Amino acid sequence: MNVQTPVKADETLMANAIRALTMDAVQAANSGHPGAPMGLADVATVLFNRFIRIDPSRPDWPDRDRFVMSAGHGSMLVYAIHHLLGYTDMDAAQLRNFRQMGARTAGHPEYGHAAGIETTTGPLGQGISTAVGMALAERMMQARFGDDLVDHYTYVMAGDGCLMEGISHEAIDLAGHLGLSRLIVFWDDNRITIDGPTDLSTSMNQKQRFEAAGWHVQAVDGHAPEAIAAAIAAARADDRPSMIACRTVIGKGAPNMGGSHKVHGAPLGAEEIAATRDALDWPHAPFVIPDGVRNAWEDVAKRGAKTRKDWQARKENSPKAAEFDAAMAPPDAEALHAAITAYKARLSADAQKVATRKASEMALEVVNATLPNSVGGSADLTGSNNTRSSAMRPVTAQDFSGDYIHYGIREHAMAAAMNGIALHGGFRTYGGTFLAFADYCRPAMRLSALMGVPVTYVMTHDSIGLGEDGPTHQPVETIASLRAMPNMNVIRPADAVETAEAWEMAATSDTTPTVLCLSRQGLPTLRRNHSAENLTARGAYLLRGGGARDVTLIATGSEVEIAMEAADLLEAGGIRAAVVSAPCFEAFAAQSPDYRAAVRGSAPRVGVEAAIRQGWELFLERSDGFIGMSGFGASAPAEELYRHFNITAEAIAASARRQIEKRTKA
Amino acid sequence: MNVQTPVKADETLMANAIRALTMDAVQAANSGHPGAPMGLADVATVLFNRFIRIDPSRPDWPDRDRFVMSAGHGSMLVYAIHHLLGYTDMDAAQLRNFRQMGARTAGHPEYGHAAGIETTTGPLGQGISTAVGMALAERMMQARFGDDLVDHYTYVMAGDGCLMEGISHEAIDLAGHLGLSRLIVFWDDNRITIDGPTDLSTSMNQKQRFEAAGWHVQAVDGHAPEAIAAAIAAARADDRPSMIACRTVIGKGAPNMGGSHKVHGAPLGAEEIAATRDALDWPHAPFVIPDGVRNAWEDVAKRGAKTRKDWQARKENSPKAAEFDAAMAPPDAEALHAAITAYKARLSADAQKVATRKASEMALEVVNATLPNSVGGSADLTGSNNTRSSAMRPVTAQDFSGDYIHYGIREHAMAAAMNGIALHGGFRTYGGTFLAFADYCRPAMRLSALMGVPVTYVMTHDSIGLGEDGPTHQPVETIASLRAMPNMNVIRPADAVETAEAWEMAATSDTTPTVLCLSRQGLPTLRRNHSAENLTARGAYLLRGGGARDVTLIATGSEVEIAMEAADLLEAGGIRAAVVSAPCFEAFAAQSPDYRAAVRGSAPRVGVEAAIRQGWELFLERSDGFIGMSGFGASAPAEELYRHFNITAEAIAASARRQIEKRTKA
Repeated sequence: MNVQTPVKADETLMANAIRALTMDAVQAANSGHPGAPMGLADVATVLFNRFIRIDPSRPDWPDRDRFVMSAGHGSMLVYAIHHLLGYTDMDAAQLRNFRQMGARTAGHPEYGHAAGIETTTGPLGQGISTAVGMALAERMMQARFGDDLVDHYTYVMAGDGCLMEGISHEAIDLAGHLGLSRLIVFWDDNRITIDGPTDLSTSMNQKQRFEAAGWHVQAVDGHAPEAIAAAIAAARADDRPSMIACRTVIGKGAPNMGGSHKVHGAPLGAEEIAATRDALDWPHAPFVIPDGVRNAWEDVAKRGAKTRKDWQARKENSPKAAEFDAAMAPPDAEALHAAITAYKARLSADAQKVATRKASEMALEVVNATLPNSVGGSADLTGSNNTRSSAMRPVTAQDFSGDYIHYGIREHAMAAAMNGIALHGGFRTYGGTFLAFADYCRPAMRLSALMGVPVTYVMTHDSIGLGEDGPTHQPVETIASLRAMPNMNVIRPADAVETAEAWEMAATSDTTPTVLCLSRQGLPTLRRNHSAENLTARGAYLLRGGGARDVTLIATGSEVEIAMEAADLLEAGGIRAAVVSAPCFEAFAAQSPDYRAAVRGSAPRVGVEAAIRQGWELFLERSDGFIGMSGFGASAPAEELYRHFNITAEAIAASARRQIEKRTKA
Repeated sequence: MNVQTPVKADETLMANAIRALTMDAVQAANSGHPGAPMGLADVATVLFNRFIRIDPSRPDWPDRDRFVMSAGHGSMLVYAIHHLLGYTDMDAAQLRNFRQMGARTAGHPEYGHAAGIETTTGPLGQGISTAVGMALAERMMQARFGDDLVDHYTYVMAGDGCLMEGISHEAIDLAGHLGLSRLIVFWDDNRITIDGPTDLSTSMNQKQRFEAAGWHVQAVDGHAPEAIAAAIAAARADDRPSMIACRTVIGKGAPNMGGSHKVHGAPLGAEEIAATRDALDWPHAPFVIPDGVRNAWEDVAKRGAKTRKDWQARKENSPKAAEFDAAMAPPDAEALHAAITAYKARLSADAQKVATRKASEMALEVVNATLPNSVGGSADLTGSNNTRSSAMRPVTAQDFSGDYIHYGIREHAMAAAMNGIALHGGFRTYGGTFLAFADYCRPAMRLSALMGVPVTYVMTHDSIGLGEDGPTHQPVETIASLRAMPNMNVIRPADAVETAEAWEMAATSDTTPTVLCLSRQGLPTLRRNHSAENLTARGAYLLRGGGARDVTLIATGSEVEIAMEAADLLEAGGIRAAVVSAPCFEAFAAQSPDYRAAVRGSAPRVGVEAAIRQGWELFLERSDGFIGMSGFGASAPAEELYRHFNITAEAIAASARRQIEKRTKA
């Protein structure tokens, strides 16, 4: 069905083309990592020549195989292959300009910078873990659309670094548990890391380790094409995820430096390059590929194009074509806006206190009913994160038709898998944990932001308001640390209305991931006007007052309620206090200067957030007041903590009065 | 030698005391986690009753066994045992006030909050990984002082969450590689997580997994005392780290809820508590312990006290007593200050450009020569982080007398192990990685800060100045995210002099960890005055100008050089520009208001840092200028990136002129 006829070609020459392009590009840049691409060239050649189905003319073809270079420093492997396959955006000039300003050939493969790069890699362990999400998405799409439309593999090349990183454990465990049969990982077993031989730092039996996680495991000589091919065929035939340990020589081909850590991350130098040309019998000038070799690689592309066209024909005749296209398309923002607006109108009538984590679950009932390809999950905090809406069913190894993933206590792999699901296409995805544990998945969140993948992080228990669990679980710096991240929307809604609006933003975001910071404790519904406008999308807005004002109280999330009480206190004393709710700093920063000035006002200000002040300069002058945290929290009931840390209506009112007095004196 | 005579006692009663105290304390708090302490009560009783050597009257006795409750939500296990052992700070009132304001009985065990708590746990996987550092420190101390003075075990209780977290993989691999024979981990194999049965999310064969990492592995019924005791004895006899899989019933003793995820994280309720009292035949009122049971536990304490006194006598007669005490004492700050001051004087004469990562290595030659118990390491970036000074020798499984640790590509376990080494005592420790990968170890760094453990993170490649590796490796938000963390000194030195001063601060810090942000690129020595004062400890200081000034340029690290060039440009145009070097925001915030005002000055300001502006409100008004980054970096040579992102002397000068003009107009 999806087994390719091997293309007759001299695979040694095909592999040596990768080696030559790699060493020459790294030399031209005087920077880069020749070791891994040269060591993996034979494995990659067999994989591409005999198995992989991609069409360079349609790099976004949905049923293509995914290829992930998890050892991202070996980016030249990807660029060389793309060049040889004839990707139009990867001509020789790109290779000559490896690692130079504006080139597609960035130091590490970056999603969106060149066609066919499935995910950004470089931070170790991310590629293999993101690939788990891709392979999971493949099975989930297959369960919905069948083999005719969905039938592809996810291939990963991982180095020792990827397998030493903790995230790999989480990802491998999850993949084994879910029986992701279409995931095939090549371990570049070259026994070398930057510091020297791997036995400086590890004694891990990787094969036994993968077996413990329920994987199919093989070991081959990574320079023996027939053995590699047989292993790939066996891996494809097995119904478990597969790991193929490929014993390789790092920098294979370089006669003097190959096999040593010296070839890992530095150019070979002119002398060793000349010696390598001799040793490989590769007399061609830098970046010159002889026709025979080029033709062999182009045959791979041709085979892929044909397979893609066959698929296209099948899809056109499929009764599920429209549904398939809809799943791959952006979400129906109009439908969601209508549904959320109707829901908001129902909400405003409800006076019950509700935690925003619970309000998130209520909003998810609307979101998940409206967007059929929404996929949720939690890192083993389903009941605390309130991430599972009523109609959701778990995804299991036996049944991939569900839409809820029990990620286990694996925040990092969850985040990476979410990236992979989103990159694969076909689903919108979100996952939950406690906000304090954003730290556990931060490297993958950073990749969401860097790649512009619109996943949603549902992060509950967002302040000292979680109470007794104490400072290990109480974010105080976490919100600031996430606001610091470029291209990450951090939304901290104040009530059920803002929570619904936040979900509308998150679920329809195009190229920006979202963090929802949600309360454990109950909060009243503060917004009572039935506006169809998504005010949360403004970032900040006047919730109360706003004409003539003596002071502006600006608060987020659970502290907006307290600011409203403070305004009552102030007004009782004859002070006109406006209250600004500021759920999303990033969105506010994007508003017009006039809008921002109107919201901030010219009166003295007091910012209120049960977190540190860093980041509040978006709203506050240095002379303005701030009521929040200046250090770690403590273990006690929430109400007592708020009193203990002086985050109260009285404290806000007192700060406001001081600000007004200062202004009067000045 | 260190095998204890089993104390005759009814261990079932001893264990039931733990169960009763746990369920009653959680009920009183109406919050907490009864499941794990009740399930682990039998294992803990056997461990303490027959093996553990601690002296509650001297909880800091250096040769005590370390006990780490890695599943920190089960804190009541620790508090109950401490109460039963007679820790004077853990009376019944503390248990009654579990999770209440001001009580020692915080929701999760917190280092420093109650005697005998060896490390803060709660964030899963941290305990077991910190314990690896403790067990490593034990072996390293043993290599230096022999069995007479150092001969103890590190015992860990870990749940499914700890073993699912990625950090556990890194820690287990490292422990197996180093053959940490004194590390014994009990896995609470209760087959329950918060979401339900473990088979919702994992199929891991934990025994096989630990064997793959080179561990000694056993499995026992976690409610069968003799089997538990035999397993512990076998674990102690083996020369590998040991994992004992203890098959337990979560919430054991609760007749209706035991065995279910419902008992994990909520009070049992009055009815189930009454039923449990019946089932356990435990008729005593809450927090009442019958004399027989109390005596049995107190016998454990007495045995520990005797063992401690024997050790004390041995130490007093040891020729190494003074050396041992010195290793356990704070570092010799005076000696280090003298050595660093002398080194600075030599430096100022040197006009060569040197990267601060290299300057750090130069400073480490001084630090490590002066502080004999300094232990370094790197997460496989030794040559890039420049963390290994010339006399350092690697620590290996065969020889623990070295002082340099090859942590492998395991930033997270490195950070946790550093915490463990520091908590164990006997060493000052530091470890290196790239600054962007602070994200990989952030949860452990947060615990360094929360516990007040003075470890040093050597984080090189601290900006776009690393060049070609591109945005995955270029920190832009990382510095801000670390400055956000309470009790963490983030130091970004501008030259070799500041780097030496930064090391003096870090190496003598008492209760604050340090991050050193160090450049890849070469930088000139800017400080030429031979002051003995550590100006870096001021946080920020006037490097140039400062009397009458038209503008103040404030910069950090590699951008101070550029600010100095900008000052030249401005002065050529008749503008008096002061330059402030600001290596440590936290230290500056702690200076007197007068000092801070004098440094900031009243002239317009321009901040300069190749990173985002967030956090700069310490120095800048909102109206002040800032030259830095507003998004992710790119892959290209460093000089081009600085030009591309407009972080140049010309841009600084232009911003300064705009600021002056604005002020003139106003």
